[in-house]
Amino acid sequence: MVPTITAFEQSPDRGQGLARDMPVRWALEEVGQPYNVRLVSFSAMKETTHRALHPFGQIPTYEEGDLALFESGAIVLHIAERHAGLLPQDANARARAITWMFAAIATVEPPIVQREAAMYLERDKTWYEERLPLIEDRIRSRLDDLSMRLGDADWLDDVFSAGDLLMVQVLRRLGGSNILEQYPTLAAYVARGEARPAFKRAFDAQLAVFTGQATG
Amino acid sequence: MVPTITAFEQSPDRGQGLARDMPVRWALEEVGQPYNVRLVSFSAMKETTHRALHPFGQIPTYEEGDLALFESGAIVLHIAERHAGLLPQDANARARAITWMFAAIATVEPPIVQREAAMYLERDKTWYEERLPLIEDRIRSRLDDLSMRLGDADWLDDVFSAGDLLMVQVLRRLGGSNILEQYPTLAAYVARGEARPAFKRAFDAQLAVFTGQATG
Repeated sequence: MVPTITAFEQSPDRGQGLARDMPVRWALEEVGQPYNVRLVSFSAMKETTHRALHPFGQIPTYEEGDLALFESGAIVLHIAERHAGLLPQDANARARAITWMFAAIATVEPPIVQREAAMYLERDKTWYEERLPLIEDRIRSRLDDLSMRLGDADWLDDVFSAGDLLMVQVLRRLGGSNILEQYPTLAAYVARGEARPAFKRAFDAQLAVFTGQATG
Repeated sequence: MVPTITAFEQSPDRGQGLARDMPVRWALEEVGQPYNVRLVSFSAMKETTHRALHPFGQIPTYEEGDLALFESGAIVLHIAERHAGLLPQDANARARAITWMFAAIATVEPPIVQREAAMYLERDKTWYEERLPLIEDRIRSRLDDLSMRLGDADWLDDVFSAGDLLMVQVLRRLGGSNILEQYPTLAAYVARGEARPAFKRAFDAQLAVFTGQATG
């Protein structure tokens, strides 16, 4: 059965692949699972029909027969559990990979999203210029720890996993900030993720929505 | 094998059970799994020995034989996968419960933690009084959606699950804010969680560390 995901009808990031459908597309491409995409407008996202799928009126959602899921992290884990390629076979290694999924979402992402929120929502506030460096210090604190753990390894725990997928996607949000560039090993880690054929296919697919080249 | 978790040697919240060991203790109590606790000082958390277990120098960690995990959400999921009681048997219901775990951490918690961060880190800033209501508006936006989805149900998806455990724990962080009180059905939902015998045992155990009544 081919699952259907939802994505923005209009790209808020002009096709940079930072919307939450991107990690889901990437995961589906990694495991070789074809998928359908239903595009949703900003207004339709807030209506009852979509909220039945996503209580918070956002994208992505994931529908597969009787199953309807939301939350990109949960959808990536669902895909990873049902197909080979995103979680190790060994039980302990699998649990560690899932730990990195949660670390990406719960520990590394929050200050990065706060920085974006400040730029979108507080740019006209008197405190914007003074507060932004405080947020960036919190980001650097996380990146200090993350780069120390990664060391000179290719991936966070031996082989590429759903944990790396989510972590790379979180770090990609720092593009243009000049923060990631201060961590050469993390920048190289992100580049390794972006070089994966599955990433490229997913990126091209979400970009095609914005450039009008979508064929689905 | 009895797992060992880590918790703060000194309670930063004076035993309110808001530290990240609380959801792990609660999950272990729900499934009836005994556990050991190793207390860690704030300075020891940042040292190499602890960072080998937790790259971000925090608590909790979870050790069980050769396995070492961090991130409370990942640890709760690990416990839920290995014991009955926190995830439904039905595959679709199980996936939905995991979706609520991610929703608690990725969607509902961030503005709630931002409010705490503002209160801890920005209380002396000129912008504190003006910015706090903006954060609280973001919290209310999430609670509007969550209360609409919960409706008059006891739990988010039929039976109590690890998704409810994490969501209740996230909402407990609003204690004293007078925000949760504006959502009577959510306040009742939190009260239902706190009334569970497993919650009470976990709460008492973390409180005993602070009051010096710990027997472990």
